[in-house]
Amino acid sequence: MANPTQLETAMAMLMSVFDKYAMSEGKKDMLSKSELRSLMEKELPGFLKNPKDQAEVDKLMKDLDHNGDSEVDFSEFVVFIAALTCACHSRPKKK
Amino acid sequence: MANPTQLETAMAMLMSVFDKYAMSEGKKDMLSKSELRSLMEKELPGFLKNPKDQAEVDKLMKDLDHNGDSEVDFSEFVVFIAALTCACHSRPKKK
Repeated sequence: MANPTQLETAMAMLMSVFDKYAMSEGKKDMLSKSELRSLMEKELPGFLKNPKDQAEVDKLMKDLDHNGDSEVDFSEFVVFIAALTCACHSRPKKK
Repeated sequence: MANPTQLETAMAMLMSVFDKYAMSEGKKDMLSKSELRSLMEKELPGFLKNPKDQAEVDKLMKDLDHNGDSEVDFSEFVVFIAALTCACHSRPKKK
C-alpha cells in the first residue's frame, strides 16, 4: 500500500485524536463532558480560557451537542473542528 | 512556543493541502476545477474512479460548490473533508 498522502494523514489524525479521548470512559464512540474537557485542555490548549471553569465547558458542550444527548459524537466533533479550521484559515496571514 | 498538538497538526495540514493546490492558478484562495482535479488525483487517489473523466470531476465540483461560483473555497473544501472523514470513521473497523 502506498504511503498515505498529507490529506489522508490529516484525516486519520482527526479520527485518532477523537478515538483516543472517547475511549477513556462511558461509550467508546462518544465524548462525555469530562472527555471533551481533557481533549480541549491537551489538544487545543488556549481555546478554553479556563478549562477548570465548569460553565465554560458546559457552554462548549451545548454548542457542539447538536442532537442534545449530552455527548459529542464524531460528526459533531468534526463539524466543530472544520469551523475552527475555517476560522484559523481566514485569519490574515502574518507578513 | 510549545510543539503543536496532534489536533493542531491535523488542522494545519488541511490548510496547507488546500493552499498548495489553490495557489497554482487563478485566485489564490480558491480551487478551480483543474486544481480540484489535481488535488483529488494526488491527495485522495482512488476517490475518483477516473480523474481524467471530465463528467466525474464536473459532478464533484457541483457537489462541493455550494455557492455556485464554479470554484471551491476553503469552507466548501473542509465541509467535504469533514463528511468524508465521518464516512471513514463510521466504517466497521477491520478485526
